[in-house]
Order: sequence, then structure tokens, then C-alpha cells
Amino acid sequence: QMPRGNLETIHHRALVLAQLRAWLDSLRFRDSFECMRKLRINLNLIYDHNPKIFLENLQTFITQLNSINHINLFLTELKEEDTTSSMYLRPDSSPVQHQPASGQKKVDVVCDALRNAMESMDPNKFCLCILTAHVKKTVPELEIALQKVHELRENPPEAPGAVSAEEALKYLLFLVNVNDLYEHSLGTYDFDLVLMVAEKSQKDPKEYLPFLNMLKSLEPNYQRYTIDKHLKRYKKALLHLSKCGEEHFHEALQLVKEQKLYSEALKLYPADSAHYKALSCAYAEHLVEQQQAEQAGLLLWRCGEPVRALQAFAGSSSWRNAICVAQQIPLPPDQLALLARDLAEKLTEQRRYADAALLLDQYAKDCEEAILALITGAVWEEALRLIYMHNRQDITETNLKPALLEAVGTQTLFLEAQVATFSRHRTRLAVVREQKEKARLDMLDEDGPDCPDAELYSEASSVMTGSKYSQSNSRISSRSSKNRRKAERKKLSLKEGSPMEDKALMYALGEIITTVDKMREEVHNLLKALVLFQFDKQAVKLQLAYEDALQMMEAAVPEVWPEGLQNSQAPLTGPNSTANSIMASFQQQQRPAASQQDAEVPTPPKMRNGIKWKLAVLK
Amino acid sequence: QMPRGNLETIHHRALVLAQLRAWLDSLRFRDSFECMRKLRINLNLIYDHNPKIFLENLQTFITQLNSINHINLFLTELKEEDTTSSMYLRPDSSPVQHQPASGQKKVDVVCDALRNAMESMDPNKFCLCILTAHVKKTVPELEIALQKVHELRENPPEAPGAVSAEEALKYLLFLVNVNDLYEHSLGTYDFDLVLMVAEKSQKDPKEYLPFLNMLKSLEPNYQRYTIDKHLKRYKKALLHLSKCGEEHFHEALQLVKEQKLYSEALKLYPADSAHYKALSCAYAEHLVEQQQAEQAGLLLWRCGEPVRALQAFAGSSSWRNAICVAQQIPLPPDQLALLARDLAEKLTEQRRYADAALLLDQYAKDCEEAILALITGAVWEEALRLIYMHNRQDITETNLKPALLEAVGTQTLFLEAQVATFSRHRTRLAVVREQKEKARLDMLDEDGPDCPDAELYSEASSVMTGSKYSQSNSRISSRSSKNRRKAERKKLSLKEGSPMEDKALMYALGEIITTVDKMREEVHNLLKALVLFQFDKQAVKLQLAYEDALQMMEAAVPEVWPEGLQNSQAPLTGPNSTANSIMASFQQQQRPAASQQDAEVPTPPKMRNGIKWKLAVLK
Repeated sequence: QMPRGNLETIHHRALVLAQLRAWLDSLRFRDSFECMRKLRINLNLIYDHNPKIFLENLQTFITQLNSINHINLFLTELKEEDTTSSMYLRPDSSPVQHQPASGQKKVDVVCDALRNAMESMDPNKFCLCILTAHVKKTVPELEIALQKVHELRENPPEAPGAVSAEEALKYLLFLVNVNDLYEHSLGTYDFDLVLMVAEKSQKDPKEYLPFLNMLKSLEPNYQRYTIDKHLKRYKKALLHLSKCGEEHFHEALQLVKEQKLYSEALKLYPADSAHYKALSCAYAEHLVEQQQAEQAGLLLWRCGEPVRALQAFAGSSSWRNAICVAQQIPLPPDQLALLARDLAEKLTEQRRYADAALLLDQYAKDCEEAILALITGAVWEEALRLIYMHNRQDITETNLKPALLEAVGTQTLFLEAQVATFSRHRTRLAVVREQKEKARLDMLDEDGPDCPDAELYSEASSVMTGSKYSQSNSRISSRSSKNRRKAERKKLSLKEGSPMEDKALMYALGEIITTVDKMREEVHNLLKALVLFQFDKQAVKLQLAYEDALQMMEAAVPEVWPEGLQNSQAPLTGPNSTANSIMASFQQQQRPAASQQDAEVPTPPKMRNGIKWKLAVLK
Repeated sequence: QMPRGNLETIHHRALVLAQLRAWLDSLRFRDSFECMRKLRINLNLIYDHNPKIFLENLQTFITQLNSINHINLFLTELKEEDTTSSMYLRPDSSPVQHQPASGQKKVDVVCDALRNAMESMDPNKFCLCILTAHVKKTVPELEIALQKVHELRENPPEAPGAVSAEEALKYLLFLVNVNDLYEHSLGTYDFDLVLMVAEKSQKDPKEYLPFLNMLKSLEPNYQRYTIDKHLKRYKKALLHLSKCGEEHFHEALQLVKEQKLYSEALKLYPADSAHYKALSCAYAEHLVEQQQAEQAGLLLWRCGEPVRALQAFAGSSSWRNAICVAQQIPLPPDQLALLARDLAEKLTEQRRYADAALLLDQYAKDCEEAILALITGAVWEEALRLIYMHNRQDITETNLKPALLEAVGTQTLFLEAQVATFSRHRTRLAVVREQKEKARLDMLDEDGPDCPDAELYSEASSVMTGSKYSQSNSRISSRSSKNRRKAERKKLSLKEGSPMEDKALMYALGEIITTVDKMREEVHNLLKALVLFQFDKQAVKLQLAYEDALQMMEAAVPEVWPEGLQNSQAPLTGPNSTANSIMASFQQQQRPAASQQDAEVPTPPKMRNGIKWKLAVLK
């Protein structure tokens, strides 16, 4: 038999909670409070039971409790947790009370609301409670609490029974660590307050007095800066330092660099000042180090440092800005041409041929080089435009036509290679899948599903199908599943017999499709140029080869990425299922082990069939 | 009791097939053939049983059969179907015989192989079989068969027992419809042959003789053209007509237009001829009608019709080609400028502002309009480049800066609207899903899975979850499932309470994400321009708003497109499942009815997080 008291307590609590709920509903806060204290029921329930009612009846609550200590007890016990969904579950019948969805935290809501109520009722009487409400907030408002203590000291309240500054400070020290309080008192820049706290602390006056005296001797802004820096409040420190005038700018710049407060600093100085320029230059140096040379250039340009801006722009291939700045400086024509050539060279390396050609044509005034760049980049129409613009039809014969013929050859060879690799991978994928299917059936033959090895088997299967995540939680977030996919991909190897060879082949096949699909625009432009120059035969051949490649790959998609691999399985059970059908579906079920976690199954690439590339004249 | 004979026959055939297989394996073709004829077993089995062996032993086959009639019988019974996989299934033990994978059809393979064997053995003796082999091909080779008959007539074989032309023709007429044969004889352009066939036919000589005499009177190429046209062989007709010289060119052009043989025609005339030009012009007209004006322009340009080419290019906004042709003509400067303005206007309508600006700047020589076009198109850097190039910094103040401020306002408002719509749809989606879930549970509560209403329910569920395809075949091809998705999407409506409202909301949410994600580049460029002109405050605001929007949407993806909706369900049965667990999973199973066909479930949009758009200077 259970000891009697135990059972009683359990029953007791359920009954008590019902009683409490009834009391709270009828606003009997005092009865509730007494009862909860006695039976050690978490005081948060007073709010959690019905937040709206509580917030609407704060005065009643305060009046009924009518005790500084009790209110403080309630405040200090406040927690973010909703006790009605953790400790004291609601009875099913009662409606769920939604928290006021202000986005604020519960503790802050209650503290602020209670404090406001008490301040309007009797700030003197509830002084300590008000301090508690400040201190209990998610981010404790120590400065404000200290400020209130300081006010008590400056203007001691005359009301009878009012709390003295002394008492209030004592109470604060009871709530908060003394060193925290000291630091925060420093942060108010109020030396009276600091001394008041320091005296109450165990600190050695020989330690803090010289520091305070040194601070007192400083110019106010510089004093605040020194305090802020001491407290590691660098943004505030910078704000105060910026007000200390010319002679302290070097120190400010130092602070900005050390703490990387560039953006904040720029806001503190007028945009046309020398300080702003110096800060911009410092920021730009930092940005260049961070590989953000273009943004550095923008800052330098706008603060009137075009030469340095040019350097930054040129370094980041931000060629339009570079050229603009160069013309603003202004660079002499020969140097501008040199700059254009330099930029064009870099852009050519980055395969940005059209940009390179524009620089060569318009700024280096070298139309021939420009046209050659366009021909190299297979930008046929633009090449032809410059040829006609500069009346250089000779280049058509010497360079453009030979380049077209070379391009059609290269493209055809490239397509052939892609098609060959694709077919090889596709054939191999079929072989690998057949082998896996055979291995699966072999295992099924050996062991029935009910045999003790079944679990072992299911592990083997998940290794076989290449996933270590079959057992993983499906409610995983999309971001982590993305990372998982990335990690997964790294493990793939095309080596024959590698455990995830099938997936590796699927990825490789997908990549070939994407590569070939991307050629639509380039092939289209090449075909047009070929037709223009009467290379119809070559154009027809390329169009056929490309069409065949696209069709072959599109036709292979359902085979390489069968729908079942992504899809759910057909229902295994249902009103019409029999023992046999469930058994049969169980055996099918072995296979989808691979597709359970489709996050790991490569998805079929999208083909851009909307991009029309074929020429009607080449049928 | 079954009638005795019936049972006997069934048994008989199985035994016979076993016997036949043994005979065919040991190359006893004659015994097999006799037996199969007697028992009406399809003769294709002789080949199908083992194609490789048969093709390697054709001479043995022919020698053993040793009968024109029997070989003909075999040939005429040939069908594409593989009888070992339809009528006479292989015993499980025997290995599958793969067809030679030459890509050719079985009937053609057998006909050609047998014919070659017979021709090398004794063409005279097997004459009729050879004819059969020609006629039986997938595309009957009637001309060749006729030609052989004609040869027999010209050079009657001297061998004893050789077939006469007369006999051969009779046999052909027995195999083929007489009118087909007459037409094909015409197609050989051999009047002797035609007369030979015509005489054997029931045709009235008064009908065909005048026609043949008329044909005979024609010049050979024109004669062939006339015959080809009569036989509707238009490509051949064009080929012959093209050889008929100048005076028939108009007729050829007419034929080309009627039969749309433009590409073919261009190949028949030298590229520098007047005919080629005339054909190109006709083709170009056709292409313009087919909305292929650019290709029309290319044809016109290359055949030396620049004025008409210009029209075609201008009509298709192929502005680079238009300008090149215009300079080749050459258009006088004022007209070139007008052309450039016209083209620029069209391009502006198509939002191709950079192209429009290039035309205005370089050909209309109107840098101001060019800069304004770039500003309208938010192509800030290029606008600035032209401003500096033409030393028009005044436009920065008058137009560029105001446009930047307007753009930042527009973008911010646009973002706000997108975010608001997104939140509205998202909230509504949660409500709709909750309602559906509630409706589902209500139905489950009312009816157990085994009750007679279950089927009714499952239908209701599929309507409720918005799919009409729950029962459809899952092995459907990806193309048709794509069409299905398209059709599906059309049915979606965002109207509250619409049956597929949840899917409609998912599509709408996906589209908002795609739209907002696409703004990365534009926002990046705008931010840079804002920084350059010291509009940091606006830039910070936009950067924050855009970042918030992207983050909010990315965070919503797992909620809007939960993984379970795409994924398979967890296994319902397995080694550890009990009757209860299967029952439980059955009840879960009701839900996936919606996700069974994930082809219809919208997929989450891809966000291009690789595109860096944020500026470090705007933290």
C-alpha cells in the first residue's frame, strides 16, 4: 500500500489548482497568492492563467497583495516559461489563453505593466518594488534603478514611511552583484552615484578614488569617452570622443580602426570635412583588405580622393567606375588609353569580352583589338557591328569567318564528347542499378522479413543505397538538409564500385545536361552568323547535332531520374488490403529505403525548353 | 470430363515446341518447316528462336527448304513481332536471345540477308524469292523489283527453267496492288517498264497511252519533273525542274512556294545567281509571315538585298544587324540617325534600355537621350559612364540623383507590398491546412476504415485535397506529368474556399519568392549608386528591408513546403510492425492522399543565395 500522505498530496494539488483557477477568474488575487505560497505553487500561474485579465486588473492585484515583500516575491519569481503549458496544464475544457502577441517577452511585459501601475499609485510606497521591476527585466535597467536611488538622495521624499536612498541602495545591492552595480554607476557618468555605490561595496577607496579623481579632472566629453572605453562601450566612446574636437581626432581614428567602427564614425562627421575624408580613407583600406575594393572605391570617390578611388576600382575590375573617375581626374588621353588597355586585359581573362571590347574601342581607340576581342569571345553580332561601324570589312575575311568555322568545329567536338560521356554514364548507371537490385533480391531470398537478421539487413540496405540518413528525423530544417546534401555530394565518387556510384552518376549526368542546355544561346548566335556567311552546311550539321543531343538527354531524364525515386510509394495498406498485399508491399518497401530521404536523391535538372535556339532556315 | 481431343492438342503443342527448338538448334530447318506448316505454327519462330544462328546458316536454310514456294511462304509470313515473347514463350531455363541491335527492323534484316544469300547462290533460280524479299521490306522496294523484271525482259536468262519477265511480272502483280505498281513504274522514268505494267493491268490504253506519249515528247528533265509532280514527289520534281534552264525558273519558283521547298531549292542554285536571289526573297517573305523576320533578314542580306534585309531586321528588333546593313547600303547620316531612334524606341518598349542607349549615343549621336534611357532603365553605372564620357555632369544633378531617390522609394514600396502579400498568403495557408486537417479527422472519427463508406471517403478526400489524379498511373512519363502539372495549375484559384486553395497559395508564395529573389542584382546596383551619392540613409533602409524580406521568405520555406509533402512516408509495415501499428499507419495514410502524387505538389523555389548583393559599408 502507498503511504497515505503521498496520495493525498497528488489529489490535493489537482483540487487546489481547480480552486486557484476559480479564484483567479474571480480576481481573488490575495487568496490565490497566500495559497500558492503555502503550497509552493509557482507564482507565474497568476499571470499565465489569463494574461489579459491580469494585465487589466493590475491595481486590484497590487491593492489586494498590499505588501512590498509579496509584490517583490511575485516579481522575482517571474520566468519566461508559461506554467500552464509546462507544470500546471490547463484542463481540456478551458480555452487556450494566447499571450498578448506584442513580440515582447512575458517578463518585460509584466515588469513594465506592474511598474507603471505602482508609479501611478504611489511611487514612494512601492519604491523597492519599482526597483525590482527595473532589475528583473530581461536586460536589467540598472542605470535607471541607480538613477532613482540617486534622486532619493538628492530629494529625500517627505512622505512618511518613504524609503531612504540608503535603504534603496542596500536593497539593490541585495538584488545585484556589487561590481556590476559599480560599473553601471560609472556608466551614468554621475560621480555622486559612483561614490555612493563604491562606499557600499567592499572596494578599497585607495583603488577607486584616484581613478575617480582623474576622471573628474577631464573635459566632460573626454571624461565620458574615458568611462565608455573603460566599460568597453566603444560606440558610445566614439560618440563622445568625436565631440572632443580637433586635437583628439587622431585618437578617434585609432579607436575606429581598432574597433572597426568605420560606418558609425562616418555618421559622426560632416561629409565635407577633412575628418570624414580621413575616416573614409581608413575605411577604404580596411575594405580593400576585406576584398571589397569596389566599395572602397565608392567611398574614396565620394570623399574626393579620385586617384586612390581609381586604384581601388581598377583592382576590383569595376571598370565603368574606374573610367569615370579617370575622366574626372582627368587622366591625360594616353594614360586613359593605357588604363583602358589594362582593364580590358583583366576583363578578357575573366571572359568578359564585350566589356573589354568597349574599353578597347571607345577609350583605347583601338577598334581592331576590340573586334578581335569580340571574335575571341564569340560575340559575333557585336563584332560585326564594330566591323561596319569602323568600316573594317577586311577583318571579316581575315578573322571573323575563320573564327566562325573554328567555333563550329569546337562546338561540334564538345557536343560529341558530352554525348559520349552521357551515354557511358547512363549505361553504367543501368548496370549499377541492376546489380543493386540483384543484391537486394538475393538478400530478401536468404532472409524472410521476420527473421532476426532483418534489422541487420535494413542497415546494409541503407549503406548499399548510399545513405546514412535513413533513420534521421524527417522534420529537419531545410537549411540543415542543404548542408547535409552538400556534405553528401562530397562523398560521391564515380569510381566503379564506389558505394554511392549510382548517385555520383546521377549528379554527373545532371551536370552534363545543365552544361549542354546552357549552350542554347551560344549555339543560336553561332548558327545565325554561319547562315549569314553562307556556311549553311556546317550550320545544318551543328543544328542537327545539338538537337539530337538535347533530345537524347531529355528522353533520358525519366530513366535516370525515375519518378518513383522522388515520389511517395503507393499506399501499402487500405480498406482493400489483405495480409498478402501488405506482405507484398512490405517487400516493395525494401526498395524505397533509398528514396525515403529524397533530400539525398539528386533532382533532375531543369531544361530551358522555352529558349528557342533552332533556325527555321536550317531544316 | 473435357473432350479428349482438346487436351491432346494443348499437350501436343508444348511437346511440339520442345521438338522444334531442338530441331532448330541442330539446324534441321526442313523438318522444322514441314512440322510448323502442318501444325500451323508461325514460321517467324524459325528466325526468332535464335536470330544469330539463323543469320549464320542462311545457305543451309535455303538448301534444305529447296523450294521457291516455301521460301516465299516464309518471307510473306515475316512479321516484326517476336514470337518467342508473344506466342511461343521460351522455357525459363533457356537464355534470352537478343535481337542483333543494329537498329534495323527484323523484317528488313531477314529480307536483305536472305536475298543476298539467294543472289549469291543462284539469282535465276530464286528470282521470284528475290522479288518477294524486295516487296516484303518495311518500305517496299517496288522500283528495284520492277527494274529486275525489266532486266529479265531486256536480257532473258538462258539458264534452263529460269523465270521469264512475263512470269515475274505476273508474280509481282499477285503480291502488289496494280495501281501502286503502275505508279512506281512511272517513277522509274522507264517507259518500257510502264508499258509492261500497264499492259498487265486492267487499265484502258486510251487513258494511259496519250499521257505516256505526252510525257515521251518532253525534254528528259522536264519529263521527269512532270512524272515526279504527278506522283507528288515534289522534292525530286524540283530537282529535275531546276535542271530545265532559265525558261522554267518561274515554274520552279511557283513549285517552291506551293510546297514550301525553300531550303531544298537554295541548295540547287549557285549562291551568286539571280535565281538564288529570287528564291531567297521568296523564302524571306515566307519567313516574315512565320514571325521569323530576323532569319529573313539574314537571307536577304547575304543574297545582296540590303534594303529589304534592313526592313526585316528592323521589324524583328535585330538592331545590330539592322545598323550593319544600314551602314553597308550606306544610309545617309541623317537617315541612319532616324533609324537608330526608331530602333531605340522599340527597344525601350521592350525594356532593353542599354541597347537603346547605345543606338542613341553612337548612331543618333544624342548622348542626352541615351543617358536618360539608361536612367529610366536603372542602368546606373552605364549612365554614369556616358555622363563622364560626354562631360554631362549636369545630368547627374538634374536627373540621375532624383531618379535614384525615386528608385529607392519604389523598390521599398514594392518590397513592402510583396512582404505583405506573402504574410497574408502564409497565414491563410495555415488556416486552410488546419481546416483540411480538421475535416479529415472529423471524417475519420465518424467512419472506421472498414466501414462501407471508406471508399466514398477516399474519393471525398482526394477532391478535398485538390487532386483528381490520386488513382492515376504513377509510371507516367515526365513529359506528360509536366503537361498535367500545367493543366493542374490552371485550375488553381486563390479565392477563399476554392477546392485547391492551399496549392494556389503555395504557387503564389513561390512566385513572390522568385520575384523578390530576382531583385538581388538590381538592389545591389542601386545600393552602390546610392552610396556613391551619399544617400547612405536611404541605402541602409533599403538594404535592411531587402534583407528582412529575403530572410523572412527563406525562413518560411520549410513551413510552406514541408519536407513531408515531397518525401515518401515512413514505412508502414516492417519486421516490428503489429496489427495496431499497421492500423495506426493506415490512419496516417489518409493524409498522404494529398502527397501521393507529388507531381502536383508545388516545389519550393530555389533562392540564389550565391548572388552577393549586400554592401559591407551599409551595416
